[in-house]
Amino acid sequence: MPAAHRYRAGAAVLGDRAGTVIPDVVLDVSDGRIAFVGPAAEAPDSAAPTTTLPGLIAPGLVNAHGHAPMTLFRGVGEGLPLERWLREVMWPREGRLGADDVRAAMSLASAEMLRHGVTTSVEMYLYGEAVADAVRDSGARALVMAPLLAAPGWEHLGTLDEQLDRAVEHAEAVRGDPFVDVGIGPHAAYTVPLEVLQRAAEATAAHGMLLHTHVAETRGEDEALRREHGVSVPRLLADHGILEGRVLAAHCVWLDDADLDLWAEHDVAVAHCPQSNAKLASGVAPLTGMLRRGIRVGLGTDGPASNNNLDLWEEIRLAGLLARVTALDAHALTAPEAFWLATGGSAAALGREDIGELAAGRWADFIHVDTDDIAFIPVEQPADLLTHLVWSAGSQHIRDTWVAGRQLVADGVCLTVDEAVLRVEVRRRAAALA
Amino acid sequence: MPAAHRYRAGAAVLGDRAGTVIPDVVLDVSDGRIAFVGPAAEAPDSAAPTTTLPGLIAPGLVNAHGHAPMTLFRGVGEGLPLERWLREVMWPREGRLGADDVRAAMSLASAEMLRHGVTTSVEMYLYGEAVADAVRDSGARALVMAPLLAAPGWEHLGTLDEQLDRAVEHAEAVRGDPFVDVGIGPHAAYTVPLEVLQRAAEATAAHGMLLHTHVAETRGEDEALRREHGVSVPRLLADHGILEGRVLAAHCVWLDDADLDLWAEHDVAVAHCPQSNAKLASGVAPLTGMLRRGIRVGLGTDGPASNNNLDLWEEIRLAGLLARVTALDAHALTAPEAFWLATGGSAAALGREDIGELAAGRWADFIHVDTDDIAFIPVEQPADLLTHLVWSAGSQHIRDTWVAGRQLVADGVCLTVDEAVLRVEVRRRAAALA
Repeated sequence: MPAAHRYRAGAAVLGDRAGTVIPDVVLDVSDGRIAFVGPAAEAPDSAAPTTTLPGLIAPGLVNAHGHAPMTLFRGVGEGLPLERWLREVMWPREGRLGADDVRAAMSLASAEMLRHGVTTSVEMYLYGEAVADAVRDSGARALVMAPLLAAPGWEHLGTLDEQLDRAVEHAEAVRGDPFVDVGIGPHAAYTVPLEVLQRAAEATAAHGMLLHTHVAETRGEDEALRREHGVSVPRLLADHGILEGRVLAAHCVWLDDADLDLWAEHDVAVAHCPQSNAKLASGVAPLTGMLRRGIRVGLGTDGPASNNNLDLWEEIRLAGLLARVTALDAHALTAPEAFWLATGGSAAALGREDIGELAAGRWADFIHVDTDDIAFIPVEQPADLLTHLVWSAGSQHIRDTWVAGRQLVADGVCLTVDEAVLRVEVRRRAAALA
Repeated sequence: MPAAHRYRAGAAVLGDRAGTVIPDVVLDVSDGRIAFVGPAAEAPDSAAPTTTLPGLIAPGLVNAHGHAPMTLFRGVGEGLPLERWLREVMWPREGRLGADDVRAAMSLASAEMLRHGVTTSVEMYLYGEAVADAVRDSGARALVMAPLLAAPGWEHLGTLDEQLDRAVEHAEAVRGDPFVDVGIGPHAAYTVPLEVLQRAAEATAAHGMLLHTHVAETRGEDEALRREHGVSVPRLLADHGILEGRVLAAHCVWLDDADLDLWAEHDVAVAHCPQSNAKLASGVAPLTGMLRRGIRVGLGTDGPASNNNLDLWEEIRLAGLLARVTALDAHALTAPEAFWLATGGSAAALGREDIGELAAGRWADFIHVDTDDIAFIPVEQPADLLTHLVWSAGSQHIRDTWVAGRQLVADGVCLTVDEAVLRVEVRRRAAALA
């Protein structure tokens, strides 16, 4: 951990639901954690070296759902219908994937996320150990969900039971790692047998891990499972005891009021992926219905094969736009709430109250935003900074990123990943997999 | 005009509806116009000096609807209901505005647009002469619509008749200017008396100008005019002979099939503003219904008080996302069509077939996009470049911008506007108006 350090900035956006903005702020870091954050006038005496940041500081964003190594397949097969896209383009390529491909792609993806101010991500992809290694090397945080899925040509990855055993083994090996948390990510109720989902739920509950799965992403999925089981996907999962532990459900587009009540009852958290859901024409998830019920919601980019980048700022804005336009209510989601969904809200959805907000005791994962740009003109009151951050600015305004007090991005350049080298390598590997 | 010049680039996206991408491309500029664009192997001999651009080139984007000087009021009054926002925040500020405020704000806005690769915009704002002056100084293009609107505290701007006379005068004064085209922009059928709209339509028809007005932006507007006149806004305008000339209608959210047929019949063009319509919860305009009928459609940012920036790349992406998710059809709008809506399609909506695409004979308004970034990995075939441009990249990837062959942005810096000075000035003026 870096030594104690004091940061002084023009302002801080805390990432809480109320949208607190503190002008002329001090952030003290000690042992990788936030020791103090508040107005400079109230800061304790300190002998620590001080860095003054001209713009604003904010918590690192928390990406609640992604398959970041799919940067290997960005935009590939664009325009094909989903079924053909999976069978002709994605599954064959993924069947040819090796751990080294995933490690390289995740390294590059980590650089992209860190440069965009995303300090934690939930990753669900093949070769979880390689994902974890890449994240560790980059200095970022991740919750790595060992995937469970069987597809044609994937036989070398082992049976679902073997995949599950390996996932539990990996989880045990990294227990207590503050940077990499491990869970299990069975793909979905329409692709993984119910008894495997049950075993995965038992394993996660037994080991205190997160269970992460896609739920009711498309209307077709909802309809198929209703035909087969006579109930909605949430009801099906609840009836089979799959919601008993820590559950994070991605997408959750086709949920009705009863499903939302079930989610609230079981404290199931949601990874809301508005851009992926719109681009793939899946639908608009009932975000405001979730928030009204106190369901924990975070924002996710999904994978770069379907988004097509790892820019959580776009999700912040789109979550607000879609919530408003579907309700025809300009107050359906405020700017502070939209930003909170990607910071404090997302952290809570992951069950990680130690990240996501600038607050004493939490990990010092934070970003410095360049406010010296047209996007931030004018500012009549401090709250305008948050408004501009959500509606006018974006990932291009992130200058510096820290995780656990360690600087990983300086003036827009990732210090831990050699992007130029990785870009060439990933391009080469993508070509070889095509 | 700059002398003849040859540009050679990694690829060109032409901005046509088919989404043509030409690798290893040559673009010849002569007298400010495109003399040749095509594969390097087919380029004519040339003795002109040559510049080699490593990334891709594309036409400058065409912003079909905006109130760019509202950069003075970005984010002000956020969260207030529309009525209070207008009465308590916007109208009082706009009543205090002077021509110098508008000139400074438009200069800064021009820099923002040029840096974002927007080379032409349709502007509807007070003090049209000041808007035109600022655009001319920046080297960009604009269609400046003299506004017609009466609000409390605006009495010093003259009666609507006086405003109309002044607009016609201004139009005569700048006739034939290739950079600034002038038209008339009565605010809307719910704010401007029908007889004034008729006089404006007569004046634009008589002078071959564009008539630009807001149409059916909100449900409230649609309902109020139906109550008063018994017909939809499009029908009302048609019945009063207001659609006879060149008409560009902004928003057009609450149009039904009959209205769309009417639009097609009168060849009314649409400025589609998906982000503003979503943020203000106005609704989603029936884009695919428009395109199916052959209605000319361009994309607009609207003003930075309601968007909150002037980044047309966001509109490209959002137009695609909203078209898909409202139709639940992933093929409702393709990446090439989305890009075309901001280039060739937008130019056609403005009735300006001399800009918007890279094609011989058109003005050499073009941009250079940095493809040396994660956002452009991988590229398996040339068309992937356009896919990445729409779904993965954005305004931050624009490196250079030319208008009529003159370079206005170099390596991300606007050469014609001193942004640092203007930012300070606009901030000062915004504070004085508050």
